[in-house]
Parts: sequence; C-alpha cells; structure tokens
Amino acid sequence: MSFLDDALKSIKPVDPEMMARAQARLDTLTKPKDSMGRLEEFARRIVAITGQMRPALSKKTIFTFAGDHGVADEGVSAFPKEVTRQMVLNFISGGAGINALARHAGAEVVVVDMGVDFDFEDMPGLLKRKVVHGTANMRKGPAMTREEAIKCLEAGISLAYDYASPGAIFGTGEMGIANTTPSSAIIAAFSGAPVDKVTGRGTGINDAVFINKVRVIEDALHVNRPDPKDPVDVLAKVGGAEIAGIAGLIIGAAARRVPVVVDGFISTAGALIAYELDSRVKDYMFSAHKSVERGHGVMLERIGLRPFVDLDLRLGEGTGAAIGISLIEAALKVYNEMATFGDAGVSEENAQETAQ
Amino acid sequence: MSFLDDALKSIKPVDPEMMARAQARLDTLTKPKDSMGRLEEFARRIVAITGQMRPALSKKTIFTFAGDHGVADEGVSAFPKEVTRQMVLNFISGGAGINALARHAGAEVVVVDMGVDFDFEDMPGLLKRKVVHGTANMRKGPAMTREEAIKCLEAGISLAYDYASPGAIFGTGEMGIANTTPSSAIIAAFSGAPVDKVTGRGTGINDAVFINKVRVIEDALHVNRPDPKDPVDVLAKVGGAEIAGIAGLIIGAAARRVPVVVDGFISTAGALIAYELDSRVKDYMFSAHKSVERGHGVMLERIGLRPFVDLDLRLGEGTGAAIGISLIEAALKVYNEMATFGDAGVSEENAQETAQ
Repeated sequence: MSFLDDALKSIKPVDPEMMARAQARLDTLTKPKDSMGRLEEFARRIVAITGQMRPALSKKTIFTFAGDHGVADEGVSAFPKEVTRQMVLNFISGGAGINALARHAGAEVVVVDMGVDFDFEDMPGLLKRKVVHGTANMRKGPAMTREEAIKCLEAGISLAYDYASPGAIFGTGEMGIANTTPSSAIIAAFSGAPVDKVTGRGTGINDAVFINKVRVIEDALHVNRPDPKDPVDVLAKVGGAEIAGIAGLIIGAAARRVPVVVDGFISTAGALIAYELDSRVKDYMFSAHKSVERGHGVMLERIGLRPFVDLDLRLGEGTGAAIGISLIEAALKVYNEMATFGDAGVSEENAQETAQ
Repeated sequence: MSFLDDALKSIKPVDPEMMARAQARLDTLTKPKDSMGRLEEFARRIVAITGQMRPALSKKTIFTFAGDHGVADEGVSAFPKEVTRQMVLNFISGGAGINALARHAGAEVVVVDMGVDFDFEDMPGLLKRKVVHGTANMRKGPAMTREEAIKCLEAGISLAYDYASPGAIFGTGEMGIANTTPSSAIIAAFSGAPVDKVTGRGTGINDAVFINKVRVIEDALHVNRPDPKDPVDVLAKVGGAEIAGIAGLIIGAAARRVPVVVDGFISTAGALIAYELDSRVKDYMFSAHKSVERGHGVMLERIGLRPFVDLDLRLGEGTGAAIGISLIEAALKVYNEMATFGDAGVSEENAQETAQ
C-alpha cells in the first residue's frame, strides 16, 4: 500500500462520546446553556479530535505552501509571476501579512516550497519540498503528472506527521501567483458548476482580465477532462503543487488527530481534494473565514463547513487561519478556565415549566 | 451646561485626512490593495480616532456594567434575579466567560455596579457607581426617573474620562437578569418596529415565556409612551442603569477620542442611546459580533455598523467585545509591522490596462 493510501486508511471519525462529554462540562459552566455558540462547538470538537478532556494548544503552526503556475502565462493575475518567490523571501524575513497575524496568534510560520519556479538557498524557516519548478500551463495540458501530484500530497502528509504532537494545531496557507485559477477549476470540476459562477477577481483584476480568466479555466477543463470521481486526477490536471501540499497536510493531520484550520479560497481547494479523497477529514477541519472569492462558498457547502470570521479578506498566505487559530484558542480558554455553577455559587436556569 | 451636555458638545467627527493617510500607508504594504479587507478599515479608523499615525493598543479595558431590572418580576427571563449579583462576584473572582476571553485578549475587566439590587462590600475590581437598587418595573411605570438616567449616563462618561489615555481601547459589556427586555423596548421605541420583530429568546426562554415577554414590552411602551425624539426619556422609561452606563461610556470615549468596541444586543442598546443623543459617536464605535438576538440587526442597521464575528454568541458580559478587541489589535499589527513593497523587494501590481 502506498504512503498516501496508508494515511487515508488510518483516518478515523472522531468519537461522538468525547464530544458529548465535552458538552456536559460546558453545560456546568457559569453561562446560559449554549450561549457561547460556536466557541462551544470549537471546544467540544477539539476535545473529540485530540481525545483529551482538557486540551490546550501548545504548538501552533501555520504552513504556507508556495508554488508557481504555468497558467500565469495566460494573463490571469494582476501580479507578475516572480512575486511568488519574492513573497517567499518576505515570509522568511517576517514582513508579510501572515507574519504579523501569526505573531498575534502566537503561531510559527513554516514556509514550504512545493513548486516555486526558483531555486532557493537554504534558509531557516524554509522547508524545501519542491516537486515541480512551477506547474505546466493547464490551458494546454495537465498541470502536473499523476506521480507529481501524489508526491506533493505525500510531502504534505509527511509534514503533518513531523509536526504532530499533543497540543499541536495546524493552519494552512499558500502563496502562488495565479492560484485562484486552478482553485476555481477544481471546484468547477467537482461540482459541475458553470466556471463564471465559481471564479472571482483574485488579487484584483478588471472585467477584461476576468472574462479571459473564465475562458482559460473553461479551456483547461475542456482540454484535460479531469475525472471528478478521481480527486488525484483533478489535482494533477487542473490543480497546483501548493494546493496538493495543503491537501496532504490535511490528510496527515486527520491521520494523526491534529486539528487543522483551513484558510480561504485556495486552501479550501486543497481541503476539497482531501475531502473528496476521504470525507472523514472533515471532522478535523475548521474553516476560518469567508473569502470574498465567490467559489469559496460553493466549496464550503460541498464539504459542509461554516466559516466564522467575516473580514472581507482575500490575501491568503494563511492569514484567515491565523485569526481562526486565535479564536479556537479563545474557545479552549473558555472551556478550561470558566467556573462551574457549583464552584461560583451561581443559581442555575429555572425549569421552563415554572418560569412563570 | 451640564456634564452630559458638555461631553456631547466636545465630540468631534474623526478627521478624514488621517483616514486617507493611513490608507496610503496600507497601500504600500506587501499585499494586493484592499486585500486585508476590514482589518484595513479597523487600522485606518483607529488612526483617525486616535490621531496617531502609528497607534498601538497598550491599555485594553472591558467595562462590564451591572444592573437589576424590576421587570424581571414579570417572568421574562429564564434565570432568577439574584444571578445578577452572583455573576458580579463571579466576574470579580475571574471565573466568568468574560474573564477567560479578556485574558485571551490581554484586557482588564472592570466591573461597574450601576444598579444591582444588592449592596456589595468593597472589592478590588469592582467600581461602585450605584444609582438605583434595580430599576422599577417598566410594565407599571418608568424604569428610572430622568435624573437617575442622567446620573447613570454621567457615571459612564466619568469612567471613560478616568480610563482614557494614549493607547487605550474600551470594550463594553453588561450583566443584568432580564436586560434583553429593556433592550428590545429601546429599539422598538426608536424604530417603531413591532415588538415581536425585535424581541428574542434572551438566555433561552420557551414559547410561552417569549409571548409573555412581548406582551410585557408592549405594555411598557403603552404605559410609558417614551418619546423617540428624546433619547434620555427612552432610556429612563424603558431602559436600565447598566444600559445607561454603556451609553455614557461611549459618549465619554468619543469625547476623549478613545475607540470603543461594542458587545452584542444589550450593549448595542446602550450604543443606540448614545447615537440618538449624538450621531457623531458612531465614528468611535466598532460593532464586534452579530448576536443571535433578532433586534440586534435592527439596531446595527439604524446606527450603520457592521459586525465582523459570527459566533452565535448570546452571553453578553463583553465577551464579543473581547474578541473584537483582539481582532482590532491584529489589524494594527498588520498595519504597523508589515514590510512595504520597496523594503521587501516585491514587484507591485501591474497596471490593469497592460495586464494582457
């Protein structure tokens, strides 16, 4: 059995009994039942994911996967391709948005070169897992071979295994000029939705560039005919190396029972690949923020995730995941630190029948 | 001129020029323009509010105002009235939801007794500003006299003045069994909306209690005839002491140019009183989270605020404000810490005309 198959096979659904036990504790805390809303959901899910009744997040890591895209040659992005490598260097030196937000969340940023079209020197903070020097132009043929796609997935799984530990939580992020294009292609391939309904403005393109982008994605789907029943086929033909890395990280996180906070549109494309490979990964994922990219909602609905921050972010890098991690940590503080009704000497809710 | 009038008169609109200067800085940072969405809005607003080009939040305070409500006698809440004082003691000993979330945000919790029907001993962390021993039952007559309402407002203003300093940010919170009832009455009075459209389930009441709650509010509005043109009249007749304290705090914050993060439904009732007294307070307010209480959206629309966290919270205390403060601080880290395109050697966006 391959490394990928083995990882997929080892994923187990989370234990509903743990979820119920966590909720029982939440119901003893000095607040009206369910009044902490989704913070309670986060706490009970982290309990069930980790199997620990009093979990704490002691190791927060955001993986920012980077890769270039041959389809950038089709003029689908507002930024030139060299920005991918420039931003990798910016991540390493701590000057990007994700660095500021990860510092705020107390998380480490790990930059993973999955497929940048540039050979980096060795640098602290950069993990070299390069599988391709940029993908091929998917308008003309497959972005990657099936073998390359699997190699990227397995690199992500390995990373998850390396970083898994009690108290670990992962966030996903990415950098890759033009990578909203393969992300839209992926959701179009799985959902069958018209391309223009799942394609957005990326980092900020005008009408003419948008119309071209839709045409490029339609062409890529027509030329490659990705098989929605075969997620690795979709990933290889119209995906990207960093998207594959994210999918792999999520699979590895689920296999090792580590919660993983999924960033926006492109990260969710990776999450969707993982979900289509094995829907049990859903139990381990949190969707942090609602992207302004229109295809994002279609992806989330397909997986069945509901984001909790609405900040009009469209940056990627893991920025939404950093914010999400901070809120999940807040939920665990509520769960772990609040007093119970008994301890605090607070009267409990009236039985409703006698409330009059 | 009264202390209240003096505070209202000293509120100035924020300087749009400062907002533009902050946005100019944001546009030099290594990210696509506007891609940090509302985090950019928060940063430029904090710059304009404080008048500081590189603001930082060095003193975060959440004011949890407490008060009892005579209308609790009408069976509108799922909890008995003594829970107000029990929860005040829980806040002081650090065991409530707000304590856990304030610790997460690095904020101090200051508990303010505005109108609890209990005489507390002196305790560190408790500010005694009691104006009433609980309000009167508004179903039978005014909740407070006009003088009491003004005294509560002025207590809130004084607190804002005491805690104002460079780097200060305030959050509002409250505790008061039955206080969704006056909050619904306040928005019904100003908006003229049918009471059942702005009344929710509070801490969790069943259908029968809900129907009774709507009737109680309708009776209170009928008996008292609050004048929507006179916000102090509305506050006195169908409001509450802690709601008045919140309104005062917001007025004082605006007068002293301190940003203030408004919690959910009840806090927004206070914000609405402040806004109806002087709409310029809006420039200084942030609405943190979307409450599940149905009247909340009507209030926010009236003021013109858009919340940014969707966590199904319905606890109050300042819990949503604590989360909001943390996100605003994240926005300032982005603004202050990110590298510029020039510093990082990152290529800027293509002019759109030549993107093809």
